[in-house]
Amino acid sequence: MPVAEFALIYRYFSHLGRGEAVDLSVGDDCAILRLRAGERLATSVDTMVEGVHFPPDSFPEDIAFRAVSTAASDLAAMGARPLAMTVALTLPESDELWLHAFSEGLAAAVAEYRLPLVGGDTTRGPLSICVQVMGALPMDQALLRNGARAGDALYVSGTLGDAAGALAVTAGEWRPSADHAQYLLERFNRPRARLELGMALLGSATAAIDISDGLLADAGHIAAGSGVRICIDPARLPLSAALRSHESREIIERWALTGGDDYELCFCLPAAVAAPPGTTLIGRVEAGAGVDCGLALESPAGYQHFDHH
Amino acid sequence: MPVAEFALIYRYFSHLGRGEAVDLSVGDDCAILRLRAGERLATSVDTMVEGVHFPPDSFPEDIAFRAVSTAASDLAAMGARPLAMTVALTLPESDELWLHAFSEGLAAAVAEYRLPLVGGDTTRGPLSICVQVMGALPMDQALLRNGARAGDALYVSGTLGDAAGALAVTAGEWRPSADHAQYLLERFNRPRARLELGMALLGSATAAIDISDGLLADAGHIAAGSGVRICIDPARLPLSAALRSHESREIIERWALTGGDDYELCFCLPAAVAAPPGTTLIGRVEAGAGVDCGLALESPAGYQHFDHH
Repeated sequence: MPVAEFALIYRYFSHLGRGEAVDLSVGDDCAILRLRAGERLATSVDTMVEGVHFPPDSFPEDIAFRAVSTAASDLAAMGARPLAMTVALTLPESDELWLHAFSEGLAAAVAEYRLPLVGGDTTRGPLSICVQVMGALPMDQALLRNGARAGDALYVSGTLGDAAGALAVTAGEWRPSADHAQYLLERFNRPRARLELGMALLGSATAAIDISDGLLADAGHIAAGSGVRICIDPARLPLSAALRSHESREIIERWALTGGDDYELCFCLPAAVAAPPGTTLIGRVEAGAGVDCGLALESPAGYQHFDHH
Repeated sequence: MPVAEFALIYRYFSHLGRGEAVDLSVGDDCAILRLRAGERLATSVDTMVEGVHFPPDSFPEDIAFRAVSTAASDLAAMGARPLAMTVALTLPESDELWLHAFSEGLAAAVAEYRLPLVGGDTTRGPLSICVQVMGALPMDQALLRNGARAGDALYVSGTLGDAAGALAVTAGEWRPSADHAQYLLERFNRPRARLELGMALLGSATAAIDISDGLLADAGHIAAGSGVRICIDPARLPLSAALRSHESREIIERWALTGGDDYELCFCLPAAVAAPPGTTLIGRVEAGAGVDCGLALESPAGYQHFDHH
């Protein structure tokens, strides 16, 4: 990378690198992070490619925020305390305005999730963003996919299907009111990783996953990992007012069950445990295998991201 | 990502995820790593893009091995003990043969560096590989760029300029003997991160960096970080027999001073400290600023990677 570009990026990004766990940030061969005594490291990586994970005309601020959110969502799904992140950015050309806007989205995500940016690189090529998040877990606790037991109750956070609805709006297939459209697009462009909820569930939830591929597909990962059957009641799915403004209940339910990119948490609690606020009971865990929602859906195996719609 | 492709990748890659520090590998929302008591985390990320960091006709085994080496080299430059890595792979199409060959290169790197592969993702797009490495450092030690002092001696590991020579061979600009050509291409395609050396230098070296952009550029980072002047004697540069077979001493020195991609370590030791085997004294640290090698070179600011040659 030409020296001038590195200097530019360093100017925008280096101030985002401060945090409690950060001993050394951007500027040497590695960043150095400090865990507390008795903690383990949780880490995950997510790549977003232009034209696959976001439309080519997306705002750089949204691309940055959403890329961090999707990676941070994996920390939330493990119940991890956020420590720091690195961002590897591949850019077709050096564009100072674009980089500035991108850095504003990154700064918003750093603040929102308390995930200081401690390293990264920038390379020339088709636009993609690779975010690696690091978090801390107690030595003996983590929200995994394999602990669900028959008799557990199934919950989700927030509302489902909003991102799928937003894609229908973007594609011109649905014209809700301006307020509703704006709400849905915000949900797609600025998903919120449920880090506080994940940490609150640590020690009580028997299994958890974040909904990136769609509720049926992701609940299926819990069912497979835990060796159980998961029954979902479509009538209980939490839906936003914006999504409920669609005329077809069938389409709404399909979006909520199979649409991805909502980044809510799906988790299981023993029947006697009270659920945290902002979450909704949507089903139960039984002996058996697979996921049953009482409906035959077109694409039950998962969500193919926006360009396949 | 279609389920079938995920299954394919999981089949190739999941067995590479075992290691002493690995509590949980591929298969959940995050991997979980365990540091020893009194250790900190060192982490770095490197992206390799086809056509920028490696030629389009590179073997997938070499692409994988080299991508891991360049990232592991940052751990070496910090003196960190390798813990684990994640790999985010962007692929233009699902090609089982390519993936199989790529996984063989990854497996070789996992074994070479003891860096189990604990997570990653695969996305559709132009070929690029983003490797995030994680290592462990003692609470109070690290090889940084800012500790060099006037009076220190300057060393490098291995030999320099081989990767630059390999690029000249690839470009058809130089035809050394078949043995020499093979040696140079192996040095470019299969660079070795100097992890053992880095760990051995911890506690004695005052500054260290890995040579990715070229000796002059990377020594310049130490000079800038430490507030010192670095003097390099071109007559002392360690050169392979293959490189020395080139007819022009001027070109050889230019490659050794400004060619990147060798991934050797450049480090400073107090004058009284003996250097480890396999390293060469090439200069000294003085009061002042900048890097001086007694030559005026065409591209002293750094190395522009193969496609700019």
